[in-house]
Amino acid sequence: MTQRPAVLIMQRHLAPLSPILESAYDVYRFWEGPPIEAAHDIRALIVAGEAPLDQALIERLPNLDLIACFTSGYDGIDIDWCRARGLPVTHAPGVNHEDVADHALGLILAARRQIVSGDRQVRSGDWTAETRPLTPSVRGQKVGVVGLGAIGKAVAARCAPFRMEVAWWGPRPRDAEWPRAESLLSLAKQSDILVVACKADETNRGLISREVLEALGPDGLLINVSRGQVIDEDALIAALKSGALGQAALDVFAEEPTDPNRWADVPNMVLTPHTAGATTAGVQGMLMLLMQNLQAHFAGEPLKTPVL
Amino acid sequence: MTQRPAVLIMQRHLAPLSPILESAYDVYRFWEGPPIEAAHDIRALIVAGEAPLDQALIERLPNLDLIACFTSGYDGIDIDWCRARGLPVTHAPGVNHEDVADHALGLILAARRQIVSGDRQVRSGDWTAETRPLTPSVRGQKVGVVGLGAIGKAVAARCAPFRMEVAWWGPRPRDAEWPRAESLLSLAKQSDILVVACKADETNRGLISREVLEALGPDGLLINVSRGQVIDEDALIAALKSGALGQAALDVFAEEPTDPNRWADVPNMVLTPHTAGATTAGVQGMLMLLMQNLQAHFAGEPLKTPVL
Repeated sequence: MTQRPAVLIMQRHLAPLSPILESAYDVYRFWEGPPIEAAHDIRALIVAGEAPLDQALIERLPNLDLIACFTSGYDGIDIDWCRARGLPVTHAPGVNHEDVADHALGLILAARRQIVSGDRQVRSGDWTAETRPLTPSVRGQKVGVVGLGAIGKAVAARCAPFRMEVAWWGPRPRDAEWPRAESLLSLAKQSDILVVACKADETNRGLISREVLEALGPDGLLINVSRGQVIDEDALIAALKSGALGQAALDVFAEEPTDPNRWADVPNMVLTPHTAGATTAGVQGMLMLLMQNLQAHFAGEPLKTPVL
Repeated sequence: MTQRPAVLIMQRHLAPLSPILESAYDVYRFWEGPPIEAAHDIRALIVAGEAPLDQALIERLPNLDLIACFTSGYDGIDIDWCRARGLPVTHAPGVNHEDVADHALGLILAARRQIVSGDRQVRSGDWTAETRPLTPSVRGQKVGVVGLGAIGKAVAARCAPFRMEVAWWGPRPRDAEWPRAESLLSLAKQSDILVVACKADETNRGLISREVLEALGPDGLLINVSRGQVIDEDALIAALKSGALGQAALDVFAEEPTDPNRWADVPNMVLTPHTAGATTAGVQGMLMLLMQNLQAHFAGEPLKTPVL
């Protein structure tokens, strides 16, 4: 009988992967205690890309030779550091960007057409014969997409039937059917709705700053389906409280799960629990890529979807 | 000085029309008491189309010669009865069907991607490291549109970028790029999401019956942006409670405002206060048509948008 490779799942919310991984591997779970006795056996870490990678732990795993990221994003992972140690990193690209874009449009409509606050109004009995709320049409709203990667393009492609106009900004020019703004600040100024859809890394932490939020303005709506760290959350809270920014709908937060007290008295927000890419179908696709990458790695074959 | 024609606004939620109407007309408001002393002066009723028309009142207004409906729908009005009395009826078609369709898509995404319940989960602190909710992708969902009028077509046109497939049913065949189901029941059976977008009248009261809801099934989602009366609300409540139907998102109700106690213990619902067509821009367009119809009528010119 051949010995099965051992893998270590790092984040508790990845626990549902255990039974599938156990079909082929010995599985350790970090939250059950550091696997000191198995330190020499563990060959791969299974991680959520948004979580900071525990480099000290990695240095105690002498036979570790793969970081397998369950997600598409891998902003918690210092790729250069891994590369310098000869540690390949895999991830799950191209699986759920369409679902994330669906959710972004859902957040635009939920915020603009007051679907979340309308539900609250009906349930609380605040809808009376005298109160017939009006909501703004999304017709003619200018959508600014920050980051025209797979998610950003999928968001842009959904705007036309809603009669919304699209522009975008990203640090590098791209061939695209939508115009690129001169700068992020200029995109925010010309937009009614700013959709943050960029890849998050150390270069764009706090990119959506007080200046950007104020340029978006008192009627502006901020959508974030990227990562929480891309937005200066304290500046966002201040801008919503002062009215310098109109509305925000966030699926991602600087810390997750986010503390609800942080948002309790912030007006005009829609909050979802990082579900934009977490669809049943999306997760199945991510799981398939994870298993294919592990299988290829342990068979000595080329990795299916390495981080380039 | 010529005498100004007198008009009577019937529904209290139309009160905001008063100052605009007063620029050209003497305005009476029904909720301030029946205008007995002005019965001979009143030339036009300003009504919301979904409200039942008070025929007894009309018989007490000898010089009434126009029913001006502020809305696009006029399901509260017995057109044959008006026609028999030589009373023309105007309405506001083609103004807000795109906004209604936007809202319908917003309701689909809010229900399927759990945006309303997700917001509740984040705010209540029920999002924890152990609970990472999965939602179904809308990819590949089959949308059945009931009634392929202006709203139905606008809903159908928004589905492709979300990778949803469209079919429809209505009592009459139409030229359309989407296939027509053999019957409403067959549409419900083949659909994951049923969007009720038909014109409401006495012929389709209770059209969405227990049989239709059960055909839509335990994973099905019902959307209503038409009128409350088209759905058998008691059957809907029973189906959601028993699990025979999966989810429902309603913008319209049999009685409006709806009693929140009616929905308090009904699971898997999104409720909005009849806002689908009530956008700032839509209302401005409806107001413009109302004023144009009144102006044309009192000038003896052809009505701008009569009910045909």
